[in-house]
Amino acid sequence: MALAHKGLEAETIPWRFTDTEAIAFSGQDKVPVLVDGDSEVHDSWAIAQYLEKKVPAQPLFEGAQARSLAFVLKTWVESTLHGPILRTVILDLFNALHEKDREYFRESREKRFGKPLEEVGGDPKKAAADLRTALLPVRQQLVQEPYVCGQDPGFADYILFGAFQWARAVSPQRLLEPDDPVYAWRERLLDLHGGLARNAKGYEVWS
Amino acid sequence: MALAHKGLEAETIPWRFTDTEAIAFSGQDKVPVLVDGDSEVHDSWAIAQYLEKKVPAQPLFEGAQARSLAFVLKTWVESTLHGPILRTVILDLFNALHEKDREYFRESREKRFGKPLEEVGGDPKKAAADLRTALLPVRQQLVQEPYVCGQDPGFADYILFGAFQWARAVSPQRLLEPDDPVYAWRERLLDLHGGLARNAKGYEVWS
Repeated sequence: MALAHKGLEAETIPWRFTDTEAIAFSGQDKVPVLVDGDSEVHDSWAIAQYLEKKVPAQPLFEGAQARSLAFVLKTWVESTLHGPILRTVILDLFNALHEKDREYFRESREKRFGKPLEEVGGDPKKAAADLRTALLPVRQQLVQEPYVCGQDPGFADYILFGAFQWARAVSPQRLLEPDDPVYAWRERLLDLHGGLARNAKGYEVWS
Repeated sequence: MALAHKGLEAETIPWRFTDTEAIAFSGQDKVPVLVDGDSEVHDSWAIAQYLEKKVPAQPLFEGAQARSLAFVLKTWVESTLHGPILRTVILDLFNALHEKDREYFRESREKRFGKPLEEVGGDPKKAAADLRTALLPVRQQLVQEPYVCGQDPGFADYILFGAFQWARAVSPQRLLEPDDPVYAWRERLLDLHGGLARNAKGYEVWS
């Protein structure tokens, strides 16, 4: 989304959890990884900073203060929303995995959560309710303006949307109710940049 | 803090919960209320917008995107941090109240929480731990930069700080541990604008 925001084209490479060799050049084992000529950048935040410096037009951040506040929001998304989203979709995610990723995923996640994969989610309705409660701060904003960043989308929109797009790639759970302003915002993000996100592989239950 | 940020002086008027007559002219019963000549503005957010428009120098918001993100942060402070802070200090607060405010405070809060004031707080250590966990997003930012808003303080710093200053006015609970980056940030806010906040009435346990 950040690349599209800046009008940049990129070749995307499908990747699985256990394809660590494919990104070993980045010195770590997590996606996203961006390769630009001889440069390699990994981590969503670092990639956004790299893009902003390299291609200042179509800014993702209005300026230094907006960047600091977007960083707070990014950390909030990771620490508060990823949990309930993962709990809601974890079994769908597991079932959508390629066979060769399943053992790795089950072992690493069961170690992280200290319980069988089947028990991580708990009550899926409870997880979805937790998610909707946690979303209050952005919901209040989205009642007033179309995007988290105001009249136009920016990094904070994309980092939050990424969590929903990730869920949609593996699970038909819609997570939000249609009368939720966050639902309407997600629809707008799906339509942005020529429907880039809506046209990506994923469940269509929201449309 | 917003007034001081802009170098504006104001007369402050001590006020109690049941002094609703004193602010009846504002058409509602909550503080803060700002009176500027013939204008009356209430609510922290509305006051910040009023000041920003009236006195554009020393901006509280870098621009429109920073304003939208600060609004999200403001709602997050109110919906996520006020609860655990109140639970930690509620009995100290009650004991610090003027006699004429106590009945109102007990009745209204017991109705809101559905339990006796003495049971609202629960385990104060648990409430303080909840607060510190919830603060993760700003803590991650404060590891990198001195203020929530970056190299310089802005509205987002003041609205978060206000919650701590409110607690400090009525309770000796320090809420944060000295090795927490949020503690160091709070010290910086106490020192800002000639020590405005540190010189206000309140407990001194943090110094």
